[in-house]
Amino acid sequence: MDHNSEKKIISQAVIRRMPRYYRILSDLMNKGVDRISSNEFADIIGSTPSQVRSDFSLFGEFGQQGYGYNVQFLYVEIGRILGLDRVHTMIIIGYGNLGHALCNHKNFYHRGFLLQGIFDNNPEVIGKRVNELSVLSMEDLPRFLREHHVDIAVLCIPSNHAKEVAKVLCENGIQGIWNFSSTDLTVPKGVHVENVHLTESLLTLSYKLKDEE
Amino acid sequence: MDHNSEKKIISQAVIRRMPRYYRILSDLMNKGVDRISSNEFADIIGSTPSQVRSDFSLFGEFGQQGYGYNVQFLYVEIGRILGLDRVHTMIIIGYGNLGHALCNHKNFYHRGFLLQGIFDNNPEVIGKRVNELSVLSMEDLPRFLREHHVDIAVLCIPSNHAKEVAKVLCENGIQGIWNFSSTDLTVPKGVHVENVHLTESLLTLSYKLKDEE
Repeated sequence: MDHNSEKKIISQAVIRRMPRYYRILSDLMNKGVDRISSNEFADIIGSTPSQVRSDFSLFGEFGQQGYGYNVQFLYVEIGRILGLDRVHTMIIIGYGNLGHALCNHKNFYHRGFLLQGIFDNNPEVIGKRVNELSVLSMEDLPRFLREHHVDIAVLCIPSNHAKEVAKVLCENGIQGIWNFSSTDLTVPKGVHVENVHLTESLLTLSYKLKDEE
Repeated sequence: MDHNSEKKIISQAVIRRMPRYYRILSDLMNKGVDRISSNEFADIIGSTPSQVRSDFSLFGEFGQQGYGYNVQFLYVEIGRILGLDRVHTMIIIGYGNLGHALCNHKNFYHRGFLLQGIFDNNPEVIGKRVNELSVLSMEDLPRFLREHHVDIAVLCIPSNHAKEVAKVLCENGIQGIWNFSSTDLTVPKGVHVENVHLTESLLTLSYKLKDEE
């Protein structure tokens, strides 16, 4: 519970930076880098050494003056902070093109996110084998959620169905929704939604291009 | 040039909100809503009426006191601001699972983002038909970019190749990169990168779940 009391003061902005720090530390380890100073790290991420030190200090005293940070130690600690010291179970709702792509994304598996079920309402897709799994019918979803512990549901369905499916998920104990549907979800307290709105991201790029003209 | 001088003062935060406003206005039109007040709009987006009014006022005087905003007018105006009043040409680099999913994403086409080419370095994939296109070899990329006007390159390749490919893209006049590779790109001035780091998004969700325990 110690960690919880620390975490309360961490701003959303800092949390947003942590996954990127984690990825960069992983790259550094792969390159055989053992130690890094806040200056070097700031250079890589395009930030300032003082922000790096401030962000890292929130999670304890990782650095040593004149000696830098131990990359592996930092990687493990930030992983722990991000909850990556445990396995997460996942289901994917919607086995269209995007659902298919996410099922086969090896990075998630390597980070301990294990796919436990795939659901779709298309009779042509239901029953299809995907690695070790078969695509199940949406009708099986509530029963599946009662019988399995699932941490995260990945929503890859058209936006007009997303709200009703999110309701079923929340009623059956899902606490994390990774939402790829182009709509905003309203969920009860205690349920967390992380949105990936692809079209909005593309429109942001479009705006930047226009600005250039 | 009038619009350019207006745009200079728009903050990154406001720009980030515009694609979402655009999506919500599109939903409202589909539901047959003609007019909306800043209060109603703020309710939908989970913001305050004063922020809505402030954001919209940046782009001119859309609203009328006691009458609300004309939804369609606002939709068209924000579309124009986002650069959606013109067609964008796109290529996809990397025809793996994600590249395949993005090729078939109908929303992009409907917003005027037209896929002109698909590139991969896998001999088993090169030559494959995708809708009207054939997957081309990466070796054809520089020539293709010299012969076609391409606005946006979508990077769906492993991160260890992303930097070198981005270099080729920039050298051949690409001004917009939609980057799905898990790495940060360094690009010359005048080139815009919009990142979609899926693993980082998942780790953010993991953090939120941990916080809940």
